[in-house]
Amino acid sequence: MGIIVQKFGGSSVANAERVNHVARIITDTYKMGHDVVVVVSAQGDTTDDLIEKAGEINPKASKREMDALLSAGELMSAALLAMAIEKQGFPVVSLSGWQAGFVTDSNHGGARIRRIEKERVENELAKHNIVIVAGFQGLNRYDDVTTLGRGGSDTSAVALAAVLHADRCQIYTDVDGVYTADPRLVKNARKLDEITYDEMLELASLGAQVLHNRSVEMAKKYNVKMEVLSSLEKKSGTEVKEVVKVEKMLIRGVARDNDVARISVVGVPDVPGIAFKIFSLLAARKINVDIILQSIGRDGTKDISFTVSRMHAGQAMALLEEVRESLRYENLVCDDTISKLSIVGSGMIANPGVASKMFEALSEANINIQMISTSEIKISVLIDEADSTRALNAVHDAFLA
Amino acid sequence: MGIIVQKFGGSSVANAERVNHVARIITDTYKMGHDVVVVVSAQGDTTDDLIEKAGEINPKASKREMDALLSAGELMSAALLAMAIEKQGFPVVSLSGWQAGFVTDSNHGGARIRRIEKERVENELAKHNIVIVAGFQGLNRYDDVTTLGRGGSDTSAVALAAVLHADRCQIYTDVDGVYTADPRLVKNARKLDEITYDEMLELASLGAQVLHNRSVEMAKKYNVKMEVLSSLEKKSGTEVKEVVKVEKMLIRGVARDNDVARISVVGVPDVPGIAFKIFSLLAARKINVDIILQSIGRDGTKDISFTVSRMHAGQAMALLEEVRESLRYENLVCDDTISKLSIVGSGMIANPGVASKMFEALSEANINIQMISTSEIKISVLIDEADSTRALNAVHDAFLA
Repeated sequence: MGIIVQKFGGSSVANAERVNHVARIITDTYKMGHDVVVVVSAQGDTTDDLIEKAGEINPKASKREMDALLSAGELMSAALLAMAIEKQGFPVVSLSGWQAGFVTDSNHGGARIRRIEKERVENELAKHNIVIVAGFQGLNRYDDVTTLGRGGSDTSAVALAAVLHADRCQIYTDVDGVYTADPRLVKNARKLDEITYDEMLELASLGAQVLHNRSVEMAKKYNVKMEVLSSLEKKSGTEVKEVVKVEKMLIRGVARDNDVARISVVGVPDVPGIAFKIFSLLAARKINVDIILQSIGRDGTKDISFTVSRMHAGQAMALLEEVRESLRYENLVCDDTISKLSIVGSGMIANPGVASKMFEALSEANINIQMISTSEIKISVLIDEADSTRALNAVHDAFLA
Repeated sequence: MGIIVQKFGGSSVANAERVNHVARIITDTYKMGHDVVVVVSAQGDTTDDLIEKAGEINPKASKREMDALLSAGELMSAALLAMAIEKQGFPVVSLSGWQAGFVTDSNHGGARIRRIEKERVENELAKHNIVIVAGFQGLNRYDDVTTLGRGGSDTSAVALAAVLHADRCQIYTDVDGVYTADPRLVKNARKLDEITYDEMLELASLGAQVLHNRSVEMAKKYNVKMEVLSSLEKKSGTEVKEVVKVEKMLIRGVARDNDVARISVVGVPDVPGIAFKIFSLLAARKINVDIILQSIGRDGTKDISFTVSRMHAGQAMALLEEVRESLRYENLVCDDTISKLSIVGSGMIANPGVASKMFEALSEANINIQMISTSEIKISVLIDEADSTRALNAVHDAFLA
């Protein structure tokens, strides 16, 4: 039997009852003969409560001290989970991020794992201990505690699975797997047994919110077999891996993202260097641009449109207003009532009919397409936000129902 | 200017307002040109809350995991206090116990400090940082987090002051110093400017509860000048040191301890080895015995009386009941409605009249003395608990008013 890494999020350990429930999942795995390493997040609202406490004292607290504060949340949940396992009569030890050997860079609040010194964890496994590791944290070269940022515990788990050469990395959440679409929005959504890393990455970045991108990227890089499954119900989840069984399914899922604003720079001179000017300007302010479309030049001018998250729309508009003189555009337009609808699937590369089938489904539902963007395994369209749930269902059912 | 170590207890940092207030005390000291190292306890009820959480999950949790859990409390308060100091515009860094170099033995829940590797703290001071250290915790040789037990943060502070050769170790509490008696009980109690380590030790063990004994013992051993002062009011406190100014005061303070039960083993054979049998029995069960009195033998028997804390009285009685046959005593009596009243002062060694003055004061107040015990700097009497507040005032005023 090999090593299994299990990760439990904050809601899975929110109170004593859930901690005991999670302890049973862990000891059941241990009883099957596996070595078990568990990564755990802070309980329920602990992190938010700590952020609020810090905000009362100093809203501009340094990131170093925020990390020192927030990392305590996972220490507490790891110790409590270990106590629950002790109560069930199994050998267990809780470890902080640094005790488990997580060495990170010094980017407080969003640190990257540099390496894991796995000696302590391996020693504990050799003593047949279940090992509970505080997720989301590590130590930099100056012996200061760092946190890994959003989705950090998933990343901790995948990184541990990689260095320990674990058989699999199980991510327990409050959903029971990855669905063809958000089941809260799409009646006919169904659970996938398998999905590739690339498909999962596209779905995660498209707002499926099951796994954090960094963890999936790392799993792909080190070929860690991930599994998304429910901490509430005992049933199989979704495996995330390099190659999945060939099925008739052309696409793996449909996702909607409402956090989209479209900015159009209308009537810029059709000369070289314009796109560079616009996007280097945005990059310098760390504004992430998603879809970019440039119209074909006509009458010596062209239009450049792109999407940003709604949070950044105002800042992007202000930046472009400032350079109106040098860019010599005619007009600047922002629309933040749009939605991005995307279909994802490795199968679509070999199937030219996928795009037209998507457009047909939208057309039949009388939904207007504002922009189209395609990649090898994804097709995204921008539509009116008001149409987005209807569009999600129409496209989903055309491919997946 | 030298190094000053300041320690703040849990109530001093219980909420954002108090954290900000404490931060001002610290930065005021820093502005005077001192190097400042601060030891802080967990906020308010944090430790009790964590103990309760653990109790819900596993009332018999291992001490190792309890330490892993409880130590998080001081990490959080240290980070929050650092944030408050950042807000006031001063350079600061918070350190966990292990970051500050606290190396302890492996006695989880009541660990002893073995040494402090002071390199990190000294480096931070060299960078002119205010250093906030999480009290009450350290790391054992297996890289596991330990806690120091009750009064642990005081001990952390004194130990740091000792290795850093600090000018003084200031213990901030919610009282403004050491009093001649508990001001809540004795109207005429007054604050002492100075007290010796030995006097403080006797007063602490007599229930004055200002400083924990371990910290005073350590201060005496390493000749650390301690100062007890208020975190609420800005005024001078009480200095604890080796030698104090000679005053006319014969005694330094009067203390009462109600957590006392007296057990009398009546009519044991007046032969060698009886006392050894009784007290080795109690020691084996880790029952601490305070005052011991043995009557003069008469008619071939004698009486042995001793006091224990009320918590241990039942257990001690049960143990002695078990050995009734072998001890061949006539009777076993327990009284847990008594109180211990003590006067403490280095001056009494050279003044034989002190004891009689104490007994006179009690006699005038018509208070019966049940037992008497004396040491070089202390006289304790056992009296009826119902008389204890009256006795405290009578004795206090005879010497100190």
